[in-house]
Amino acid sequence: MPISRRQDTTQEASGHSVNAAANRLLKRLKAEASRLRFTNRRLANGCTVIDAGIDTPGGLSGGLRIAEICMGGLGEVSLECDHSTPTWPWRLNVRSCDPVIACLASQYAGWSLSLGEGREAYHAMGSGPARALARKEVLFSELGYVDQSQAGCLVLEVDRFPPPELAAKIAADCGIDSDALTLILTPTRSLAGVVQVVARVLEVALHKAHSLGFPLTQIVDGLGSAPLPPPAPDFITAMGRTNDAILYGGQVQLFVSGSDAEAADLARALPSSGSRDYGKPFSDIFTDYHCDFFQIDPLLFSPAAVTVSCLDSGRSFHAGALNSALLEQAFGATR
Amino acid sequence: MPISRRQDTTQEASGHSVNAAANRLLKRLKAEASRLRFTNRRLANGCTVIDAGIDTPGGLSGGLRIAEICMGGLGEVSLECDHSTPTWPWRLNVRSCDPVIACLASQYAGWSLSLGEGREAYHAMGSGPARALARKEVLFSELGYVDQSQAGCLVLEVDRFPPPELAAKIAADCGIDSDALTLILTPTRSLAGVVQVVARVLEVALHKAHSLGFPLTQIVDGLGSAPLPPPAPDFITAMGRTNDAILYGGQVQLFVSGSDAEAADLARALPSSGSRDYGKPFSDIFTDYHCDFFQIDPLLFSPAAVTVSCLDSGRSFHAGALNSALLEQAFGATR
Amino acid sequence: MPISRRQDTTQEASGHSVNAAANRLLKRLKAEASRLRFTNRRLANGCTVIDAGIDTPGGLSGGLRIAEICMGGLGEVSLECDHSTPTWPWRLNVRSCDPVIACLASQYAGWSLSLGEGREAYHAMGSGPARALARKEVLFSELGYVDQSQAGCLVLEVDRFPPPELAAKIAADCGIDSDALTLILTPTRSLAGVVQVVARVLEVALHKAHSLGFPLTQIVDGLGSAPLPPPAPDFITAMGRTNDAILYGGQVQLFVSGSDAEAADLARALPSSGSRDYGKPFSDIFTDYHCDFFQIDPLLFSPAAVTVSCLDSGRSFHAGALNSALLEQAFGATR
Repeated sequence: MPISRRQDTTQEASGHSVNAAANRLLKRLKAEASRLRFTNRRLANGCTVIDAGIDTPGGLSGGLRIAEICMGGLGEVSLECDHSTPTWPWRLNVRSCDPVIACLASQYAGWSLSLGEGREAYHAMGSGPARALARKEVLFSELGYVDQSQAGCLVLEVDRFPPPELAAKIAADCGIDSDALTLILTPTRSLAGVVQVVARVLEVALHKAHSLGFPLTQIVDGLGSAPLPPPAPDFITAMGRTNDAILYGGQVQLFVSGSDAEAADLARALPSSGSRDYGKPFSDIFTDYHCDFFQIDPLLFSPAAVTVSCLDSGRSFHAGALNSALLEQAFGATR
Repeated sequence: MPISRRQDTTQEASGHSVNAAANRLLKRLKAEASRLRFTNRRLANGCTVIDAGIDTPGGLSGGLRIAEICMGGLGEVSLECDHSTPTWPWRLNVRSCDPVIACLASQYAGWSLSLGEGREAYHAMGSGPARALARKEVLFSELGYVDQSQAGCLVLEVDRFPPPELAAKIAADCGIDSDALTLILTPTRSLAGVVQVVARVLEVALHKAHSLGFPLTQIVDGLGSAPLPPPAPDFITAMGRTNDAILYGGQVQLFVSGSDAEAADLARALPSSGSRDYGKPFSDIFTDYHCDFFQIDPLLFSPAAVTVSCLDSGRSFHAGALNSALLEQAFGATR
Repeated sequence: MPISRRQDTTQEASGHSVNAAANRLLKRLKAEASRLRFTNRRLANGCTVIDAGIDTPGGLSGGLRIAEICMGGLGEVSLECDHSTPTWPWRLNVRSCDPVIACLASQYAGWSLSLGEGREAYHAMGSGPARALARKEVLFSELGYVDQSQAGCLVLEVDRFPPPELAAKIAADCGIDSDALTLILTPTRSLAGVVQVVARVLEVALHKAHSLGFPLTQIVDGLGSAPLPPPAPDFITAMGRTNDAILYGGQVQLFVSGSDAEAADLARALPSSGSRDYGKPFSDIFTDYHCDFFQIDPLLFSPAAVTVSCLDSGRSFHAGALNSALLEQAFGATR
């Protein structure tokens, strides 16, 4: 049972357990793993590992399932044709009935995991509902959301299987048994990996809104859309494109409470075009900073075009624009 | 068990109970109410009231569910991105496997309900499957559709809870117990309310076709699409925008039997542009008529662009056009 | 239980029975037949026949279900609004988690069936999962896919009920009892028929890729989209339009393994524009060849616009283009 500590009136306690909902979706995913060309494995300690693209091809359809699991059962993700980005017409559409909890308490890749040192070290960012069990991130104190569940699920954007010790550590942090933990592995270069990253287009908007100091309790609903980039075997190219899909092809509409001034300020500040690093493929930005992620302007991570609709006034504020030329460049070039 | 009295060959007795189907969808809606940020209440007489936006935020996802309930389980409604109306790319898409029954016997807001007088009076238009139990409207004699069900559901586009006496009256008219009645309340200003109104884009086309004297038995299938307007707290602005979404942004394709002449006449007469009141935001039309709804040209209520495809000849007739400039004006301005 | 003989690493044994999956979908289709305005009948030998448009109107929604049954539970088909072909904005979107098996082992209309001679003769092309039980086509030796199931389903694009003897022959070829066989009849002129044919846009791309000698094991994932044509009562017009929807309005993206040269060659050769017969409505091509199907260039059958994304390099190759003017001509004219 989830316990919500938020006391605002705009977003009431959802009474929703992101892990319980994800576990229902997971059960179906596991049963259909071979159909989706995923594999289920068990680590020695009982932890289930779903390979969505390391030693198996996986696919786009499975990626959509993972994206919905990652949103803790509070989001719906579809892949439809739309020519707003003409050469790349397939777009991922994301919707959530509770975007703050779905995106920030569950989907955001905010849990930094590591084991070992040097060349043997294993590093990963954990995303998905188990984050709301472990609550290792400062963000959770602001969200005021606690989940309780006997079982948990975490998504790792990695291309190596995790050591059993790391799985045990994650389970312990979540307060669950190792055999009640499921890890889903989605390499950046895989079809499923591309889908589950680009399906973060709404989450990226919420995270930036939070960074800008916009009160999360005022975000009532949200919609996101971004083009499906072609996967690439090279990590930097692949990662670059999933970012470019959002930075240059992402579109988001947020429905917020509060004043027009707040909504207008949010709209103005939200699009990626406001960042000093805007204007070249992400892989170039990354390599121009000598692959030092922390030198990238954090405000870059946001959709290209946004609409913020203020529910208290009925006014909407548009900012930013899709950048098809840049997408063309980014999705076409390889390293 | 539903009883259909229609004897035409084009639309055979569907054998479908709109209330039985809606009740299956309702069961799921109630179970997931907190997730959708709706609340379930019980009136003193046992009637269930689902608040989809009065004292609770509700949301777009819940609105989609309500729209499908309102169509008696005979329709599917999705919310996808499409740049036909560029600044407002999210559009509601509506499909029905039996549009006459789904839209006119169930979804149409045709049951006029009221209780009390003067300032205490409660007025509402009832829509949804319970209409086919009560059959209070002349329309039902033409539809020849009777539903029989132990339980019923009605959607009210209101921002106040109904008096228990009204619920009891509705139940009595439906021939069901009060505790077998569910009322779903969707304020025009709410996210769910906006969705469930604009999801009437296909219904509006069917209703106008009927007003124009086109035989309903000749309407075999239909598709509708309209942009999602931003909600507004002011009733006239909110109501205006939901109408504008259909009048200036709505697109419908009807598949009909009969002659080319009938199909061509229907196409020509169907779009909103044929109305004397076409050409300004609906809220202006309404206020220019001093808020007297009955002075508005009834033929205004129709989609902007239509295609009528004649199944007997294979010819299609297009008429009308989307009016993005007017949508821009309507969705942007507030009162 | 399905047995896969493929030994490649790109597309592993899916362990998926297309008939078992189709039967689950069929069960639901049969239960909802009247709602979808289909009828279920039993032939004297027990074979179930679902009429999707001969003596019953059927509809678009039922057509979507048939399309997914035809893909053996390995595909998802939606009907959404998208203005890439502006006058005909409703498009069918097709996705498969295992496109080679879904499209070629199940959906492809490759099983030539006939009974009797002369004017009494009954001819049909069988498509759908039962093909993978009978394996009458040379194609199956290349696919290396064998399905085993107690029950089977075949889709026939016909406008007459099949003789019971043909049903018995099909069942015998499949190694199942006649009463375990379901035949779905979808006339070309029907709404459901149009949907289930145009939903073959991805299959057509796979079939042509195969004809061009591209190794099927290198096709990892795929997406397709094509506009919904208006049905026509005349067979040649109706058949022409379903082909035109794909040839002039179809868009496909394939994700393949292998070299850039292979992907580039495939992209260059894949679009319909490479065929000598490209450039006029299919019904004209057909009649100009005096209705001799075998004179038509087999390479004509392919989508208008394709993207081939090479997973091993990350490069994508675009070729072809949508031809809205020709669609306008084809969907508008009748014979």
